[in-house]
Amino acid sequence: MKAIIYDNIKAVQWVDGRVRLLDQRLLPDKVKYLDFSTSAEVATAIADMVVRGAPAIGITAAYGVVLAVAQRYGESAQRWRQPLQEDLDTLLHARPTAVNLRWAVKRLSAIIDTLNIPPLEPLLAEAKRIHAQDIAANKRIGELGASLLSRDSVLTHCNAGALATGGYGTALGVIRSAWAAGKIKNVYADETRPWLQGSRLTAWELLQEGIPVTLLCEGAAAALMREQRPGWVIVGADRVAANGDVVNKIGTYSLAVIARAHGVRFMVAAPTSTLDMSMPSGGEVEIEHRSADEVLTLQGKSIAASGATAWNRVFDVTPASLVDALVTEQGIIHNPDTDKLQRLMNGSP
Amino acid sequence: MKAIIYDNIKAVQWVDGRVRLLDQRLLPDKVKYLDFSTSAEVATAIADMVVRGAPAIGITAAYGVVLAVAQRYGESAQRWRQPLQEDLDTLLHARPTAVNLRWAVKRLSAIIDTLNIPPLEPLLAEAKRIHAQDIAANKRIGELGASLLSRDSVLTHCNAGALATGGYGTALGVIRSAWAAGKIKNVYADETRPWLQGSRLTAWELLQEGIPVTLLCEGAAAALMREQRPGWVIVGADRVAANGDVVNKIGTYSLAVIARAHGVRFMVAAPTSTLDMSMPSGGEVEIEHRSADEVLTLQGKSIAASGATAWNRVFDVTPASLVDALVTEQGIIHNPDTDKLQRLMNGSP
Repeated sequence: MKAIIYDNIKAVQWVDGRVRLLDQRLLPDKVKYLDFSTSAEVATAIADMVVRGAPAIGITAAYGVVLAVAQRYGESAQRWRQPLQEDLDTLLHARPTAVNLRWAVKRLSAIIDTLNIPPLEPLLAEAKRIHAQDIAANKRIGELGASLLSRDSVLTHCNAGALATGGYGTALGVIRSAWAAGKIKNVYADETRPWLQGSRLTAWELLQEGIPVTLLCEGAAAALMREQRPGWVIVGADRVAANGDVVNKIGTYSLAVIARAHGVRFMVAAPTSTLDMSMPSGGEVEIEHRSADEVLTLQGKSIAASGATAWNRVFDVTPASLVDALVTEQGIIHNPDTDKLQRLMNGSP
Repeated sequence: MKAIIYDNIKAVQWVDGRVRLLDQRLLPDKVKYLDFSTSAEVATAIADMVVRGAPAIGITAAYGVVLAVAQRYGESAQRWRQPLQEDLDTLLHARPTAVNLRWAVKRLSAIIDTLNIPPLEPLLAEAKRIHAQDIAANKRIGELGASLLSRDSVLTHCNAGALATGGYGTALGVIRSAWAAGKIKNVYADETRPWLQGSRLTAWELLQEGIPVTLLCEGAAAALMREQRPGWVIVGADRVAANGDVVNKIGTYSLAVIARAHGVRFMVAAPTSTLDMSMPSGGEVEIEHRSADEVLTLQGKSIAASGATAWNRVFDVTPASLVDALVTEQGIIHNPDTDKLQRLMNGSP
């Protein structure tokens, strides 16, 4: 049994009444933490991708709500609800695609609605509970996902690790658990253009654990599958619709198509907080476009011919029909569909 | 009819007894030409990718043979054949995958074998003929390929343009011809990691012509096909096997799989000099691996976590079954197979 030291990697922390974020824009070159004391700053940090990954964004937003309430309640114990609502809206609109942001803000809003006097303590307790539950969910997802593997090579995309969650990770949680149990031979990771989450974050995170990682460009996936025959592709999710469609980092859908064509199984590892039963299918989810500059420049330097534009959709939708296993902390759903997801969410998988 | 100014782009030239190459490692930031006066230098330039693209490599190697003969014949009019053979071997092994290199060196070797006295003039004439024939072939390929399009958006990969050929280009030749005839709406181009031929070379080349280009990361291909519905993927080839399997830049095979899954047609534009009838299928072709550093660094700077490795296979094999049209200067082959290629090469398509 190999040691697992994921506890060293903390994307989000609550420290002395402030939100501390590991600045993921600077990894792997610099490990730098930034502290935020207002919810407006937290919203900007989410939009600017200081923190990223659906569960980590959700946890950060939850702490952001606590900051907002502290500020507005401090300004006026009588009239704090209306300015607070504006803060919550700002948080909610920081990024459009990850559902955990909405889910976390809603969970705290429900408490706010029932409170009259100093609401801070129960709110902070709830935010910490969201954080702790996420870590616990990821460990359970790791166990369940690893149970599907057997001496496989696996391929992952983007970063669905401790850096993207409260800790331990979803896709990388499965890889951590499987590695510890000796059930993985090789980990391949897409570099994940344009933001290079694979090269910068996943490689960094796995190497911290002593798990060797081999990077590849996204275009190499089909050749890799034909030649190296990984057993599974394992990815996280930014949102899973009620029918099992998976919204995740751009490139996930390409991988799923290629995996199916090669008989490579496709696993989505996501906590139930990422399941959005209000969205009938992935087609209804708002998909974020970001600036063309993310494709045309790197580290502030142009890498493309001047005058070119870019299509920079940053998430895509993988139809449920391409998903072999959706692994949640409540259980594994094979070949997900609306009925199976509904049963899982009702506690009777 | 829009003006076509491809003549401004010259990847390879024979100038004053030397080979002049446009240094494609520096594009689009710098337009710099390098002159080479020995075949050993030319072989190094090919290996280092000063020049790339199967037809351009072939033409460069042909001029390289002329330089080798000039040098060895100059050194000894009696004993020039043996040292020459070593020069030719060095050229032949500069890069393993593109068949045009072999094809061009063989074509000149056939002349050398029949000559006794000063062989330079007929050799240079043959090298120039190879160059001129390539441009003529590309223009014909452009016409034929464009005839298959109708107000389509198209997606291309890597650079199969004037920069990759004697001039005009194969895949970009089709796009040039179709653009001039008003048969293209949009050109999408993969950025083509790790070398960024799409962002650096294809975008630069098309913008020189006033053809607008939208770049995307390879991972975005499936989402693009579902949402933007391009009519065709159009690529070049480094080698086409006798059964129609296509060896081309890494990422081509991924694109072909994704295109088929979306009902997007897949066109390979290649001169018959790229067809290798001695290779029964793509599985037998030697596929080049290059340094992991091409994935792990960019412009000399690390872009990945320290300690990570990379799988950097730089070509892949697209099975003939995924090719809807192979467009050569001798004609179009729909759904290529061994019989159809054999008939084309026999002059009876």
